Amino acid sequence: MENQKYDVIVIGGGPAGIISATTARKYYPDKKILLIKNIEKGVIPCGIPYMFETLKNPEENAMGNAPLEKNNVGLMVDEVIKILRQEKSVKTKAGKTLIYEKLILAMGANPILPPIKGLDKENVFPIYKEMSYLKGLKDKLAAAKNIVIIGGGFIGIEFADEFSSIKGKNVSLVEAFPYLLMNSFDIDFGELVRQKLETKGVKLSLNTKVAEVLGQDKVSEVRLSDGTTIPADMVVLGIGASPNTKLAQAAGLDLGKGKGIWVDEYMRTIDPDIFAIGDCVGKRDFFTRKDLPVMLASTATAEARVAGANLYKLKVVRENKGTIAIYSTYVDGLVLGSAGLTEASAKAEGFEIEIGQAEAPSKHPATLPGTVKTKVKLIFSKQSGILMGGQVVGGISAGEIINIIGLAIQKRVSATELETLQMATHPHLTAPPTMYPLVLAAQDVVGKI
Amino acid sequence: MENQKYDVIVIGGGPAGIISATTARKYYPDKKILLIKNIEKGVIPCGIPYMFETLKNPEENAMGNAPLEKNNVGLMVDEVIKILRQEKSVKTKAGKTLIYEKLILAMGANPILPPIKGLDKENVFPIYKEMSYLKGLKDKLAAAKNIVIIGGGFIGIEFADEFSSIKGKNVSLVEAFPYLLMNSFDIDFGELVRQKLETKGVKLSLNTKVAEVLGQDKVSEVRLSDGTTIPADMVVLGIGASPNTKLAQAAGLDLGKGKGIWVDEYMRTIDPDIFAIGDCVGKRDFFTRKDLPVMLASTATAEARVAGANLYKLKVVRENKGTIAIYSTYVDGLVLGSAGLTEASAKAEGFEIEIGQAEAPSKHPATLPGTVKTKVKLIFSKQSGILMGGQVVGGISAGEIINIIGLAIQKRVSATELETLQMATHPHLTAPPTMYPLVLAAQDVVGKI
Repeated sequence: MENQKYDVIVIGGGPAGIISATTARKYYPDKKILLIKNIEKGVIPCGIPYMFETLKNPEENAMGNAPLEKNNVGLMVDEVIKILRQEKSVKTKAGKTLIYEKLILAMGANPILPPIKGLDKENVFPIYKEMSYLKGLKDKLAAAKNIVIIGGGFIGIEFADEFSSIKGKNVSLVEAFPYLLMNSFDIDFGELVRQKLETKGVKLSLNTKVAEVLGQDKVSEVRLSDGTTIPADMVVLGIGASPNTKLAQAAGLDLGKGKGIWVDEYMRTIDPDIFAIGDCVGKRDFFTRKDLPVMLASTATAEARVAGANLYKLKVVRENKGTIAIYSTYVDGLVLGSAGLTEASAKAEGFEIEIGQAEAPSKHPATLPGTVKTKVKLIFSKQSGILMGGQVVGGISAGEIINIIGLAIQKRVSATELETLQMATHPHLTAPPTMYPLVLAAQDVVGKI
Repeated sequence: MENQKYDVIVIGGGPAGIISATTARKYYPDKKILLIKNIEKGVIPCGIPYMFETLKNPEENAMGNAPLEKNNVGLMVDEVIKILRQEKSVKTKAGKTLIYEKLILAMGANPILPPIKGLDKENVFPIYKEMSYLKGLKDKLAAAKNIVIIGGGFIGIEFADEFSSIKGKNVSLVEAFPYLLMNSFDIDFGELVRQKLETKGVKLSLNTKVAEVLGQDKVSEVRLSDGTTIPADMVVLGIGASPNTKLAQAAGLDLGKGKGIWVDEYMRTIDPDIFAIGDCVGKRDFFTRKDLPVMLASTATAEARVAGANLYKLKVVRENKGTIAIYSTYVDGLVLGSAGLTEASAKAEGFEIEIGQAEAPSKHPATLPGTVKTKVKLIFSKQSGILMGGQVVGGISAGEIINIIGLAIQKRVSATELETLQMATHPHLTAPPTMYPLVLAAQDVVGKI
């Protein structure tokens, strides 16, 4: 059998893989591009929590192939089992050998399975990004009454919100840290999520670990570190993921400190013809250059655009030299966003900071129907006055307010600049110009720095 | 009678006046500050269109005195009739003489009364920012069936939206320009507003002037430049405003080219002890340094913060040296935003530009309930790749998306930077990371520049 030859091969069918392929097509219209994925039908990662009740049918969250077809990117469902760097080829499970000029690794991450006894029992579900698997979870969910979610990060709280919207489910959530979303928010914001989930009837066990998952073949209860037990027909694991670096490691690519594949500023591994992007890649923190354990589709797609454009020549020069954590989430109408450092993480890293805070109505006058409170917390470097982080809670638009903060961090905006920011305001859409919360929070801090 | 002495006197009770006084209080805690306003009860300017149907009671849009009381700012309802620069005092209509160390002029603007015959008839309403006047308008509105709005800018379209939501009103709008919102949007966006208003039953006459307002004492019909007439029980004028510079002119302050009081970068007039802010002040365009006829509460409050902080020493150094036009509006659920230059205004000014466009769903997957289409148009300098303007149409969050664009313009972000922007995305809140519209629009243009 003759080996198939391609100019560009992408391994991985998630957002990073897809966007790197379509970006490559845009910049290199004549190249022969192939994307290989090992999952027949994937899902939109961020939409997973909403496949159980919010969306009528899980199929509505399918990751389609239309962008690939539209961009003339070949598609193969198969698993790459080896990268041969000398030959510049990959071998697949189905026995194919495929030659590449440029290879893009976008293999994503695997859910972390903590060393808890009993996780191998039936009805214990880590979150895999695969349609058939998640449909199976939904089927089991129908019969489950008592559900325990392990982990109070984004996945955990969004699943708790979704499951507690279904009639007749008893939902419990167990989190080892003292408060929810602790990696991304300060405690005052985490507390708002706790209140919201408790209002929905979710039973929270904070500062508590899971000691063991009990049951015969199937899970029946969960024993906590404090000795109490919770009845459980189903357990969902949401405690993070680790970069999928197996293939890269076997091919002798550098893994830096083991937190993902090492890449340079342009997503090139130590092999100049092999790029790596997304969750399988190590990130460098925007503020410290240290490893940053952030796995986000938005980060992955930004990296994919850099890689796709720069495959043959470095066309897109990167201006932001590092990754910021930037998140938004939604719990029963409550919207939270976080960008950059929190007060806690900034202090832990040793930054001397000042905090600016503000509250404002989401519309004006606040008597307009549907007005909610927007609360903003900004973290500035005390000496230089540069914005290093921000958190927001509010209504739907808070999902874009956090992106204003994110851009301001990336452009190293100062408190003074933010204090005199020019912005659009409108009664139905924003806080009043006299109380625009980013301006107020900047002003709150200006006197102190 | 002894003259009253103050450290800081502010003339004007709109957003600029209030914010300059409260900012002065923050930076200069020991100063004696007085605000003089000539309207007993003002209103929140941007909320005016919503005082007739959306808000249950016009009083809900009152501009309260709480921020002044809270900040220990004295309040006087009176009219300043003269500024005596030599004596550093002002004289009021009630006969008072008040001494100042620093004076802040925030006298706002007056509605333009175009040279149309018959505007003096009863039931013709320019928009004055005064509670009792607007309550009067609302009272007359109750009995009016046929209403003609003159002007298709923000005021005109928002009044048309509000009035056409009231049962039994026939609303017509006359605009001299070929399309709605022409000063701030390109035609494709203006067309969306036209469609929306027409769906609500508003009768539009574009590219048409009003020749005469007819009637005995009271308006009965409006004759257009094409000779047709429209029956009218009420006419609302929304064709802009001109800076209120009478006092400043009489005091010998410089008016630049007559488009508002001249001020330096720190809102100082040619008299170092007199500052001027808000609609009574001339603006300099961010891109060209030319006069920019922008009157926005958000611009006014940004200027007020600069002035308030810098009264005695220049504490807040201005980093953005010019004004950008940045607007958002809302028409029956349709949200539009514009920042900086439009395609038309950039071309008219002589800029060589490239346009990037994108469409994306406001949520993801797009099957989520309430998803609408977000459409973005970005204007970049062709040679330098710098963002110079943007327009957005979409759902509620578009009101903050335009503020991301606005910040990006103020920070002179390039297309390349925007293409690799790091942002938060969430199913309920934003477009998917693969289709974030600002990134797509940047990518759309990157190949061309």
